[in-house]
Parts: sequence; structure tokens; C-alpha cells
Amino acid sequence: MTMRDIDPTTLEDGGPREACGVFGITNHADAAALSYFGLYALQHRGQESAGIAVCDNGEIRMHKNLGLVSDVFGTDILKKLSGNTAIGQVRYSTTGKTSLINAQPFVVSHRGHTYALAHNGNIVNAHVLRRELESSGSIFQTTNDTEIFLHLFVKNLDKGFDTALVNTVETLKGAFSFLLLTSDCGLVGIKDPNGFRPLCLGRKNGSYVLASETCALDLVEAQFVRELDPGEIVIISKNGSIRSIQVPTPKRRSFCIFEFIYFARPDSMIHDLSVYEMRKAMGRQLAQESHVDADLVMPFPDSGNYAALGYSEQSGVPFEMAMIRNHYVGRTFIQPTQSMRDFGVRVKLNPVRSLLRGKEIVIVEDSIIRGTTTKTRIKALREMGVKRIHMRVSCPPHRFPCHYGIDFSSKGELIASGKSVAELTSYLGLDSMHYLSIEGLLASTGVKNAEDLFCKSCFDGCYPVSFDKDLSKDCLEKI
Amino acid sequence: MTMRDIDPTTLEDGGPREACGVFGITNHADAAALSYFGLYALQHRGQESAGIAVCDNGEIRMHKNLGLVSDVFGTDILKKLSGNTAIGQVRYSTTGKTSLINAQPFVVSHRGHTYALAHNGNIVNAHVLRRELESSGSIFQTTNDTEIFLHLFVKNLDKGFDTALVNTVETLKGAFSFLLLTSDCGLVGIKDPNGFRPLCLGRKNGSYVLASETCALDLVEAQFVRELDPGEIVIISKNGSIRSIQVPTPKRRSFCIFEFIYFARPDSMIHDLSVYEMRKAMGRQLAQESHVDADLVMPFPDSGNYAALGYSEQSGVPFEMAMIRNHYVGRTFIQPTQSMRDFGVRVKLNPVRSLLRGKEIVIVEDSIIRGTTTKTRIKALREMGVKRIHMRVSCPPHRFPCHYGIDFSSKGELIASGKSVAELTSYLGLDSMHYLSIEGLLASTGVKNAEDLFCKSCFDGCYPVSFDKDLSKDCLEKI
Amino acid sequence: MTMRDIDPTTLEDGGPREACGVFGITNHADAAALSYFGLYALQHRGQESAGIAVCDNGEIRMHKNLGLVSDVFGTDILKKLSGNTAIGQVRYSTTGKTSLINAQPFVVSHRGHTYALAHNGNIVNAHVLRRELESSGSIFQTTNDTEIFLHLFVKNLDKGFDTALVNTVETLKGAFSFLLLTSDCGLVGIKDPNGFRPLCLGRKNGSYVLASETCALDLVEAQFVRELDPGEIVIISKNGSIRSIQVPTPKRRSFCIFEFIYFARPDSMIHDLSVYEMRKAMGRQLAQESHVDADLVMPFPDSGNYAALGYSEQSGVPFEMAMIRNHYVGRTFIQPTQSMRDFGVRVKLNPVRSLLRGKEIVIVEDSIIRGTTTKTRIKALREMGVKRIHMRVSCPPHRFPCHYGIDFSSKGELIASGKSVAELTSYLGLDSMHYLSIEGLLASTGVKNAEDLFCKSCFDGCYPVSFDKDLSKDCLEKI
Amino acid sequence: MTMRDIDPTTLEDGGPREACGVFGITNHADAAALSYFGLYALQHRGQESAGIAVCDNGEIRMHKNLGLVSDVFGTDILKKLSGNTAIGQVRYSTTGKTSLINAQPFVVSHRGHTYALAHNGNIVNAHVLRRELESSGSIFQTTNDTEIFLHLFVKNLDKGFDTALVNTVETLKGAFSFLLLTSDCGLVGIKDPNGFRPLCLGRKNGSYVLASETCALDLVEAQFVRELDPGEIVIISKNGSIRSIQVPTPKRRSFCIFEFIYFARPDSMIHDLSVYEMRKAMGRQLAQESHVDADLVMPFPDSGNYAALGYSEQSGVPFEMAMIRNHYVGRTFIQPTQSMRDFGVRVKLNPVRSLLRGKEIVIVEDSIIRGTTTKTRIKALREMGVKRIHMRVSCPPHRFPCHYGIDFSSKGELIASGKSVAELTSYLGLDSMHYLSIEGLLASTGVKNAEDLFCKSCFDGCYPVSFDKDLSKDCLEKI
Repeated sequence: MTMRDIDPTTLEDGGPREACGVFGITNHADAAALSYFGLYALQHRGQESAGIAVCDNGEIRMHKNLGLVSDVFGTDILKKLSGNTAIGQVRYSTTGKTSLINAQPFVVSHRGHTYALAHNGNIVNAHVLRRELESSGSIFQTTNDTEIFLHLFVKNLDKGFDTALVNTVETLKGAFSFLLLTSDCGLVGIKDPNGFRPLCLGRKNGSYVLASETCALDLVEAQFVRELDPGEIVIISKNGSIRSIQVPTPKRRSFCIFEFIYFARPDSMIHDLSVYEMRKAMGRQLAQESHVDADLVMPFPDSGNYAALGYSEQSGVPFEMAMIRNHYVGRTFIQPTQSMRDFGVRVKLNPVRSLLRGKEIVIVEDSIIRGTTTKTRIKALREMGVKRIHMRVSCPPHRFPCHYGIDFSSKGELIASGKSVAELTSYLGLDSMHYLSIEGLLASTGVKNAEDLFCKSCFDGCYPVSFDKDLSKDCLEKI
Repeated sequence: MTMRDIDPTTLEDGGPREACGVFGITNHADAAALSYFGLYALQHRGQESAGIAVCDNGEIRMHKNLGLVSDVFGTDILKKLSGNTAIGQVRYSTTGKTSLINAQPFVVSHRGHTYALAHNGNIVNAHVLRRELESSGSIFQTTNDTEIFLHLFVKNLDKGFDTALVNTVETLKGAFSFLLLTSDCGLVGIKDPNGFRPLCLGRKNGSYVLASETCALDLVEAQFVRELDPGEIVIISKNGSIRSIQVPTPKRRSFCIFEFIYFARPDSMIHDLSVYEMRKAMGRQLAQESHVDADLVMPFPDSGNYAALGYSEQSGVPFEMAMIRNHYVGRTFIQPTQSMRDFGVRVKLNPVRSLLRGKEIVIVEDSIIRGTTTKTRIKALREMGVKRIHMRVSCPPHRFPCHYGIDFSSKGELIASGKSVAELTSYLGLDSMHYLSIEGLLASTGVKNAEDLFCKSCFDGCYPVSFDKDLSKDCLEKI
Repeated sequence: MTMRDIDPTTLEDGGPREACGVFGITNHADAAALSYFGLYALQHRGQESAGIAVCDNGEIRMHKNLGLVSDVFGTDILKKLSGNTAIGQVRYSTTGKTSLINAQPFVVSHRGHTYALAHNGNIVNAHVLRRELESSGSIFQTTNDTEIFLHLFVKNLDKGFDTALVNTVETLKGAFSFLLLTSDCGLVGIKDPNGFRPLCLGRKNGSYVLASETCALDLVEAQFVRELDPGEIVIISKNGSIRSIQVPTPKRRSFCIFEFIYFARPDSMIHDLSVYEMRKAMGRQLAQESHVDADLVMPFPDSGNYAALGYSEQSGVPFEMAMIRNHYVGRTFIQPTQSMRDFGVRVKLNPVRSLLRGKEIVIVEDSIIRGTTTKTRIKALREMGVKRIHMRVSCPPHRFPCHYGIDFSSKGELIASGKSVAELTSYLGLDSMHYLSIEGLLASTGVKNAEDLFCKSCFDGCYPVSFDKDLSKDCLEKI
Repeated sequence: MTMRDIDPTTLEDGGPREACGVFGITNHADAAALSYFGLYALQHRGQESAGIAVCDNGEIRMHKNLGLVSDVFGTDILKKLSGNTAIGQVRYSTTGKTSLINAQPFVVSHRGHTYALAHNGNIVNAHVLRRELESSGSIFQTTNDTEIFLHLFVKNLDKGFDTALVNTVETLKGAFSFLLLTSDCGLVGIKDPNGFRPLCLGRKNGSYVLASETCALDLVEAQFVRELDPGEIVIISKNGSIRSIQVPTPKRRSFCIFEFIYFARPDSMIHDLSVYEMRKAMGRQLAQESHVDADLVMPFPDSGNYAALGYSEQSGVPFEMAMIRNHYVGRTFIQPTQSMRDFGVRVKLNPVRSLLRGKEIVIVEDSIIRGTTTKTRIKALREMGVKRIHMRVSCPPHRFPCHYGIDFSSKGELIASGKSVAELTSYLGLDSMHYLSIEGLLASTGVKNAEDLFCKSCFDGCYPVSFDKDLSKDCLEKI
């Protein structure tokens, strides 16, 4: 018997893991504690590292480490993070290897000022900019693109604070939502001109809050004010004044539609749209596109829950929670021997045999990225005696990598880029399979001109911001 | 701001926590690893400590500690637990304070033999027996009743192994499912004559498995053979022979009905009944007893899920998962200040505002024990703008303590023992409230003569095994 | 390259490791904290586990774990150990395998009373007594002999507390210094009739202190009152009264002479004798017995320091500290590959090349038990260019195992039991070697009739208390 | 009782703590493991953080953390640090606050190359250089002066590698011994033109070793080749070629004489001088300058050991080790209450009462910096009944801060800067006190023209390299 401690996420479905979540708050005596709770609410956006920086009387103090928010912060540490303005970040690496050195916030000093920066997104011209900066003598200590923002920013500071910000934003290309904390306790929120990643503004009495999602506002009892506009720079001063600078933007927006499909928490509102209700709408649309007269419809918990509910609602097929989640699965567990290889999946999710034996079922998934655990889970269902299995996926096939902050950055990782739906059906051991159409997906949003609002490049290869000189903004393939 | 690390379970609903789960396996080269997985599947039955003892060539090795299975065992430790027969236990203290000394398995030696014992249940005549044993010079090292079994057993060993077991079982009163591992690698499973706690037998090729619930058999890919009978002692020898001794039993069984309502995992079968389906049946019955024409029906995740599904199915009120669970909540988090007191609840469960604002809703709970978080959660829903809230509980009010292994052992802990339903409705801030009737509960089981099969003493005070001389076996109160 | 974390003590000289140290205090508000410091001072007597039990209002609370005192106790734990009377123990296993279950104090309850026991020594008739107790139905949870005391004690309690103590002491054979804490906050100190192990009484204002060595009294600022007599039972009540019971004793005492040679701290007084000065006297005697006209005399730090000083004083050979100890050696370090095998020794002790090159030196060791690191250290000196190496050992050769609480319990472990001095000289790579004679050792004590006072069985095999029916009290071999 | 975990070093004598130790090795398959052992031997030079960087096939991997070498590195981590060239550092902060961000080696990337740097020393014009660099757009991530080297170096790289090194070394002022590892597996060793800090070259078969002290060469079995010259840059290429560049140097050297007095390990050779023997010579000189006809001479272990031996040798006063060190003192222990305040000192060092009572003694200290524990230790001796106490210090009074890498950087920390010897004698509770004269100190070195070789600015305020524009190179005060 060979055993080693493994990370159970490697047994997971290889689902996409978001880049980051950011949270900031001004003018609150418990700034660090509120950031801690805010990051807790955003933990689904990044689980590799967590960090909080606070400004206290002209000094910036910071703590960050690899691990979950609950691992990284304890009472003792939070107590030391006194100060009235704070930013925090949770991170899953997209650019830059996983290591403490890439954890955020990122803090530097320059001419007596200190700056802390937290980033959600991906700068597509990072390599070009870095090469230029190094030519002029800059050295880099991390492999992440956040450091580039700071180099550019300080080089522009002679022109003034606002101009330095605008110039920097205009130089960077790609998806980015930044929070910048300055040692005079100012807080700056920045959203890229295309508006890829969410960033919203809230208010809690005399404090302003900036957060990746509204669920973080809910938790800290802040009132939602509005989503930042694409290309908007919001500057909140220590004394509570707030002002906004607008950088020129392209006509078309590029809100990441995958935030709605998978990433964002269902209790969040993004761009004034309910994630929960949009997911149900996708499920209803899916039932319209591809109905099966099955005994029951079920999700793989928990991400397919809402689309499955919508599917059931539309189709009349009864909704059942036929896989039971074990809530006590730790971060690591013992790797089984070859003969117990499938234990890994059932440790986390066990099918309800009495419900499934002899049945024809529909499984609703929100998305299939790498497909690894999907296959194993379907096998586990078969072993429980399920007769026929139909899979319905509430988004189109992922055929193109994302360059804007999601971690499937090469085609090779995407199972649907190499296999047709027919091949996948066979590969996964299904009786039938259907992906939501792109048209159906856009229709599910309920938004007029959805085509002009969302980035859906992972489905159609139409990249709104070029990430390479050789790449036109046109779609990679016409599909 | 005052902060301290607290256990988030103290922010939980104060729901009942089961005594224990036990798992044993014979004749398998990976006995410890399989026990590890078996305990993982039973983790919901006890989260305070975990332990595994293995028999290897006449020697018993053991490891146990406070914490979850995933905390207590790593690869290194499992490797040291070589041996072909093993027992394991997860525990939540009912008798005996929480401490390592009470963790199980409990190992003793006597005349060159070693015995390891794992227990699920509660011995109601423990105090009397202990007093007698101490009078004859026995000393005790723990405060739990498991130690009593071993004192009695070795004192009877002169009469032979089987007789010692039978005498011990006949002397003990109460609820108990024991696994005994002997240093000649025999495994004994014992269920008390009333059959309070589940204990089932499985088979995995040449190995026998004994486990509290079938979900543990599923995980380790063992085939379910049968539930042990009340008063049955199963003795499995090292060479694989199995035999059974039957101790006299009372006519009426006393299967704990609360295992079906709350404790057992929904993917388990107990007494050949599907826990999942019985919970749905309770929900349907609840809808029949007390329908409301609401906008939606929702559970508090995850325990009310199945009854809520049944309620929706019967009533036609749409089922929604309107509270979102944060899967990254660690074991401890920072206690908020007074002004953020309610964060604690929303860290774990956040209501979906867009779904709830202005609605009339039905919440289905499986049970209300102490009622602490129920109240806070309802408050959180109100703050999201819910118009009217009706609570439906899929069991009768808990008015009497349990003396058979569940941790509400005094009336004072039971909110329903001190408050009428009307008072509770007002106390919890509800618009209406209904508990499933005892008759409805029994009907939901789908079993004939259910009245003679189940212990429902926590609802009616009719205790099937007296736990005190002053207590008749009659019901405490006629209700 | 193969590396693994190893315990540096395995690279050590395999010197003897004492059984245990005990400390107790009555009637002090900081009983646990003082015990913590007392155990710190006694840490050299046992490094495997540490524990403290306190009595507080009729309740005994205890904490123990594997590790050093500084590992086992932190502020939080000490705070929880409130109470006015306490006992503590540090332990190195002699009887009983190393494991948490054998850590002490050992706590049991019986008829409403709780007892905590800490032990230093070894009961030689433990197996016989255990067999008898098991025959009458007693079960055992540890493999150490301390548990036997408690079984015997409670079985005799019907005859009264004092008689139970006396009967128990008279039944036990061997070396034992016990501290017993009772749940009415009484403290009992017991020394075996032969007086093998030290146990002294001290006073700190209104509190009594019992400790293995006076260095623990020094640290907690208690005044030394007296050493307990062999066979003395001291009973200190909660209200501060103290009384003494004397059990019959043999005419000859058996103070362990190895306490003076190696175990005890040099700053301790035992039996009114200064350990430091006795060690110097042994060194002077050694120089008289076997002078060498060398360039320098040096110890292997730190145990040979004092004898080396005495040797230098007597012989006029200059004393040098020619091996430098690295004070930062952690508990574990990386095992070097074969090619760096000798790094392990030099990590801890490095010779001073400039002092040693081309010199003729005398090394003074206090004792050689297993001889493993002695050989390696001598090799390291040779590599530094030392010309001639003479070893002088300040005790006779260890040729017989100890049965009274020191951990060389078999002849096989003792290098001098299998090799003559000439063979050892060659094996260790020395130019000459001399062991202190038994007569010289006794003379060094400066005590009249030393022959009748000390146990020196590890040198001559004359065991003062028989540890087996087949063994007479006569010497094993006449030497 | 108020308790908190404290660091026992705060109970220490507040002795000076060295800045850093560095170690590098080329062309060895176990480069990281050898660096680990090398740092172990240099641990006395810095205990706050430890780090190792290795070059493997053009990539630099690094691990560093707060803590001792044994805490920071385990087998798993060392295994990951594969590569044939490595540098390591142990650090105690002098410039730059203690925090992980200041731990070394410091790694940056620039134009496809990676550089790792380890530093021992202090750059006195760091602030000026940093201001200039920031003006040209450089950002800084640490507060230590090591980062400045790298900024300067890459800005000069256009002129070629060697010229970049020379220009950088000529721009920096102060004390510095650098090791630079490049991603083409080259290793560079640099010693500042004044030669403040030691740095020696060794050879181990086909590998070169660079280390702060020869004791590190001993441990890894490397042969000592030579000390680097002041202003020397040694460049060792991947293929094993070695070359040297000499930067212009001032006529007078400035070897830190305090390395000999206190910092360096006694088993090291520095500038071809034995530290051990020089310390004995200081002790002999001390006896000549100020003899007392006492009963015994003793050190406070362990730093005063060697001077005390020399004192005894010269004076004939017997040497005794009259304070016993407890080798089991952990990194933290419980802070005693006010009433046990002095326990802290005795936990670590306990006087031997039997040796000291009624005696007149000489204590030899190597130096007194802050004097905090000196006072407490003398009090402890008095309580043991010592009659008269004479202190002899084997260096002159520390009256001036060090600006070259030792951590007493302000006069306020130096007890001798505010108190005359007479005042100190009274403050410390001594009967007499004598410091070694500067002339005596220089004579003890046995070096001709010692005046022109050593930096002794902490005694006389004559700073060889100006650290401020306002400061001339002349002595601060004529003494």
C-alpha cells in the first residue's frame, strides 16, 4: 500500500479557479476585521493566499500568507493590524507561480510613501511592459503582473497623483480591478476600460467599501451603492471625500459572462443582475433546448444547483439532491491505493442509492472544464444502478483559453477543445449530452444587446483585448 | 474592539450532536486505511475525537486524538497502524467530558490479552455499576461509560469468552452499539437488546465490515449484508468465521427515530429504510398537515433540504435554495464585536436578496433543539425584506431529554420544553409555525406498527429503558 | 542523496537517560506555575514527556503530553491549571514504552475521590504484582509500573488512608520516589526503603515543596529542609500540617551513586553532598590513579566538565575547553548522506583546531555507556591533528544493567560489559584509557562507610533488591 | 497571576547580536544540504531568519523564513532545493525591521536573469543612495540595505558584469561581505575595502566554499584556503574557474575587533588568528592589569569562558564553572509573576551554592553592552552567599554605537556610555570592576601594528568610514 497526503482538490473536477477577490474599506475603526469578513465572503474567488494591509497614521502594516482566510488570520494578527483604512485580497494564481512572494497585497515604498496594491485580473501586455521597465534599470521581485502597476505608477508620479493613475491605467491592457492603498490612508479603486471583472462600491455609515462582489457587502452590512463603470478610477480620501476619474473606454463592454455561470456567488448581484436568477434562467433555457423525460433531475453539488432547479421548473422533471456532500472533508486526506482509487470521489460526494437504482436521470452541470471528476462521478452513479444518464451543461463548450484572469490559460486543459460533444458523451460514459447554445446563454441574461456587453471569448475565441501583437481582435475561429 | 477565536459551531443552531460512529473491518491488509475512510463517512456522527486501533500479530496498536478524522490521521500515522483487523470511532461526548482521556477506542490489557473497544450509545445504569465495581477495588481512568464494559467483561472472563460477553450485555442497560477488537484479531459487534443505535454488517470480498451506517459501507465499496438484530452479538474470528449470539430482547423495539429525522446521513439505509426518502415523506406529510400558499419553500441548508423537497412536491410551492452556504468556513474565526454580532451567521449562510425581497416564504427545518441560530437566521431573512415567514418543522417538538446517546440530556436545553408553539412563533419572529404531529411522523416511516418499533421518547417522554430507580418505564407525561 | 529528519540524540553518545523527575507543592496560589518552573529545573531527568496535575476545590485537573516542559506547557494551559496544590513529572521511559498513555501524572478516580500520581524509579516486582491484580479482575491501561501503586492503594483503602499507603509501600519492591496528590488537596511524598532515588523537602513561606533535586528548590526560591529518609512517607494536608510515617528499612542504604556521577545537576545537593564537588573529587582521584603528563586536559562538554577540572587541579595539566558546543542545535536536523556522516557530531561539538594540532591530550568523560559518539568524537579530534589521546573516565566500567530506574536495562547495551579496557582503548582509537576504580569512587564521596550507603550495582552487579525470584541479593559476579 | 509567553532572550544580558552569517558553495550535488550545515555552524551570527537559494539549470529556487536554521529547513524543503550552486544566510536585523520581507537571500529578476544576494554588514550611505534611486523611479520592497546593491548593480550592467560589480562596490560605503548567486550558477564573494566583516574561501574537492567563519568550513569538511582581502571580489564560474578583482582600498584596515572578543565562534580562525587563543590572551592581559587574590575565578557561561581560563592561567586563581547552564531552556517560557521575577535568570543559569557560599570571587565577562542580566546574575550570586564579587571585563567599555553591522546602534543602549566605571560598579552591585584597556586589548591580539588593522570604534568613537555627511572620520571624542 502506498499512501501520501494529497490535496483533495486534485480529485476535484478541475473546475476553473478564479484569479482573485479584493475588498477595501475606509474610515472604520475595525478596518482589518471588516476586511477579514469581506475576504471570507470572497474566499470562493481564490484559495491560495490571503492578505490584508492597513493604513495607520501614515504607516502601512500588512500580513499575508498562503492558505485560506481562516488559516492566515487569527485574533492576534488582526489586533496588530490596527488602522482605519484597509485593503485585502484572496488569490488564486493565474500569472505567476504559487508562492508566498506572489501573495498580495503587494507593498512597496518610494520617496517616503508606501503603497499597497491588490489585484483581480490579468494584464495581457505584462511581458512587453516588464521588458521595457527592466531596460531602464527596474528589478522585479515577483512573477506577477501586479508589480508592473507600481513601477509604472511611481515613474509617472512627477506628473501628479491623478495623472499617474490615469497614465498607468491607459498603459495597461487586459482585465484588472485594482485596489490601491496609500500611506496617507487614501483608497483607490480601479476598473479596466472593458470592465471584465466586477468591482462594486458600497457604503457603511461613514465608510466606503469596495469589493469584488455584493455578497461581501451583505456580510459586513454595507449598503450597495453601484458597480464601478468600466475605466473608472474612484479615489476616496482619508477624510471621506470621494471623486471619480473616467478613462476612455471602448464602445463594447466585456463583462465576463463566466462570472454569472460559475464564479460569482449566487447571492451576489453583478451589473444589477442576480447571479442566482440568471443561473436558474440558464437551466430553464437548457430544458427548452434539450428536454428529456427523465425520472429526476439532479445537480452535482453545489455549483449546478441553480441551473438544475431552473431545468426542473421548466421541464417538470422532479428535482432531487441525489448526491450527498460530506461537509467534513479536510484540506488533505490520505491517498488511497489503486484498489481504492475511487474512494476519493465518494469521500466528498456519495450518491443516494435508494433514489437512483434503475432510474433515468438528468444531471445538470454549470460547466465542464477539464472533465476529470465528471467522469468519475458518472461512474459512481452507474455503480449505484442508474439506468440512463443525460448530462445538460448550462453553458456552451469551453473551447478557448481565458486571458483575462481565469486559470484555464491553454487549450490543452479544456476537454471540449479537443473533443466533439459526441466524443465527450462517449468519453464520460453518458447516454446523452447537451451544452447550452451561445444564443441561449445570451438570452438567459435577460439583457438587451447582450452581445455587446459580455466577454464570451472562452466559448467563441473572440478576444476583446489583444494579448499578443500577432493576434487581431477578431475571433480566433469563426464558429 | 474585542476579538477572540471562537468555534463557529457556537454560532450554529445548537442542533443535536450525535454521540458516536463506529467502524470495524477484519482480514484486510489495509485495515487502518479502510477504517480511516469509514470514519470519514461517519464524521457527521461525532467531531470531537477520532481513533483507530489495529490488531497485528497479537499486538494492538492505537492512535487517537481530539479533532476531525482528517486532523487526527496523516499518512505517517496510518502507515504505523499496520494490521489486518481494525476498529475506529468518531465521538461527540455525551457521558464524560470532552478530553483526550475519553477519546476512543479504549484499550486495556488483562492477563496477556489486549482489548480495544469503541462505543456508540449511552449506558443508563453506568453510575450504579461503577459504584459496585469501585467497591470491589476497581479504579477508573475515564469518565465515560465505555470503561465499565471492560471491567465487567474481564471479571466474567473465567466463565469463557462468549459467556463474558453475554453477561456483560445483560448487565448493561441503555443504548449501545459496541465494537470490540481482541489481540487475537477477533472482532465483536454488539447491539443492545432494544436496538437503539444502528449497526450494520457488510462484506468486502474476504473481509467483514461493521459500521454505524451504510454510507460507510458505500465509501469503502463493501456490500451491505444486514442490520444487526437488537441484542445480537456477532463474533468474527481472525480466520474469517462468523457466528452470532442472541441475547433476550424486549418485545418492543426502540429504534431511535431521530436517526431518521436528523442524525443519519441521507444516503444511508437504516433498518432497510432510506433515510433520504423518509425525510421527503416527512416533508410531504408536513405539507398535508399544514399547507401555506407561499411564494417559495426553502430549507436552511443542509439538514432541512429533503423535507423541504417533500414539502414542495406535495404542496406545489416552488423549492428554492435561498440561503447560500459558504464552503470555506474554517473551524474557528474571529469573533466580531457587538456591532458585527450578526456577521457570524451570515459568514456561513447568506440569504439571496433578489429572491426573497417582498416574498411570503415557507422555511422547512428538520428539528429545533435550542433554537439559538434559528432566531438569528430568521432575523437575517427579515433584513433581506421577506414579507411573511412560515416555519414548518419535520418532527414534533423536542420536549424531553434523550438518555440514549444524544446530547440534549436536560430539559433546560430544549426550547420547546419551556415554550408553547404560540410562544415559539412569537419568540422566533415567525408569522406561523407548525410541527409535524407524532402520528404524522410515524405515518411517514411507511412502517406497519411503527409505534412498536421506534423510540420517540424525546417527543413524548416515554422512555423504553429506565435510567433511574425512581423512574418507571411509563411516559413522563401523557401528552 | 537520501535525507530524513532524525533526532540528534541518536547521534549522541547514547549516554544514560534518567527515568524521571518529580516536583510537588502545597498551598500556593501559583502551584501550577511553580511546578512548571520546578520541572524546568528537573528537565535533565527526563525529556520524553511532561505533566502537571493540580487540585482545586476537590477536583483534579491535569495536562500532560510528549515533549519538553517548554513544549508541553504554554500560558493558556497553565492558566487553566488553577489550584493550590500540584504535582508534576518529567519522564524518560524505563519500564513502559514511550507513548502518551504512559506519560505522568497518572490520574484515576475511585469512590468519588481522584488521585494523581507521579513516579521516579522502577518497581522490580511489577510483573508479579500485575499478574495477581489481573487475576482478581483488574484491568490495566498503561504499561508502566505506576499504575500498580494505585491498584494496590485503593484495594487497601478500607483499612484507612495511612495503612493503605504503608501496605502499598511494603508490597512494592525496587526503587521509587512517589508523589501522590489527592482530591482533598493533600500531597504525599514517598521514598522507597532503600532510598535509591533522591527526594527532598523544601519550604517556601507557607508552602511545602517536594522535589527530586535541590536545584528545583533553588529555582522556585524554596528553602531546603531535608532529604526524605529511606522508607519515609510524608503526608502534607491541605491546611498545611505535615506528618511522617516510617516504613521499616534494611540496614544498608542504596543511594544511587550514578546520580552523583552523571544524572543529578551539579548545582544540586543530594544527601547533603555537593554533586559538583564530588565530581571534582572524582577527577582528582582519577589523576592520582592514572596521571599523564599531557599538554592539556579537556572534557567533552558538558558532562565531563567538573571531573576534568578536578583532574587538572590535581595533575597540573592545563584545563582547556577544546570542543565548542553549538547552542543552536535543534531537536531534529537533516540526516547527512553517507559522505557527510560525521557532520552530525560536529554540528553539536567542534574541536578547536589551533589548540589541538600536534598535542598530547587527556579527555575526561564522566561515563561511557554505549560508546557510540565517544568513538566519533575521538575520530574528529584525530582529524584535527591531535597527536596522542588519553581517556580518563570518572567512574568504573558499566558492566551490569540497572534495574532501579536507569535506562540501560540490558548488558547488551553496555559497551564495557563486552569489551575489556584494552579492547575498548583500541576500539575507541585511544592511546590509553583508565576508569576510576570502585575504591577510588567510594573514596571520592568523602563519606565514611560509603560501601554501606550507595548502590553501585551497575559496576559490580551486587543488586541490593532482588528483581527476580531466581536472583539472590548477592552480586552477580564477583569482580 | 499574570502570565504571558515571552522570549527568554529578553531575559538575557542584552548582549550584542551579530548582523549575519553567509555561506556559499559551488559545483556540489548537495549544495543545499551543505549550505544547511554551513548555516548551522554560523547560527550564532543571526537567529532571526534563515534562507538558502540554489541555482539549478538557469533557475534560482529559494526558501527562507523567520526562525532558526533547524526551524526553517526540513528534509522536504531541502529536497526541493536541488542545484549545484547555493548561497545561504542567517540574519539578525541591524538595518531593517525584523520581518519575513527582510529575510535573505534576496532574489530579483532582470532581463531574463535572476540574482540572489546574501549580505553581512551595514551600508552607511544607504539612505543617500536610496533617495537617489527613488528619484529615478526605483521602488523598494524591503527596508534593508541589501536591496540597494541590486538596484545599483543592474543599472550598471550595461557596462559589463565585472564593471557593474566594481562600480557597485565603489559606490557603497560601510561594512559588507556579500555573496551573489547568478542564474548561470556563478558565485561571487565580495568584501568591502575596509575589511570589516570576515569572509573566507575554502575548498572541498572540486567545490569552492565562501563562509563568514572557518567553523563552517570545518563542519562541511572543506579546507581553508584564505581570508578574502579587503576590497576583493572573487568570481567563481559554473565550470569551476575562479578569478579575483581588487578594488582600491584605504591604507588602514578595519577588521572588527569585536568579532574576536565576542561574535565569532572560538573554534574559528579569522585573519589567521585563533579566536579561542586570542580570548585567552585577553584574559591573561586582564589578570596582569588588575589582579585580585580571590578564591576562584568564574565566567558567566558560555561567552566569558575563554577569557576566564586565561585569567586563571595568568593569576593562579582557580577556575570554576560555578553557574550551571540548563540546556533544555526552550525558545519561550512562561513569564513569572512579580514575585517570581528572578526565576527567569535562574531557569537558564543556576549558581552552585556549595561552591560559592562565603567566597571572594572574580567573574570574567567578555563584554557588557546593556548590562540588564549582568545585574540580575550578580544578585543571584549574592543570594547564594558570595562574600565579595570582582568583575573583570575582557574588553574596554562600550561607549559608542556601531555603524558597521552590530546591533547596538545608539549610545542610549550602551550602559558604559552613560555611567563611569565607578558608577557601574555600584549599579551592578560589585565590590570592584575593571575593563581591559584599549592598549591591553591591542596587545592581546599579538599582531604588530594592531592599531592600523582593527576597527575599535565602539570603544573610542574613531569611525573609519563616515556614515553621515556631518561626521568627519576623526574620532567622535578624544578619550
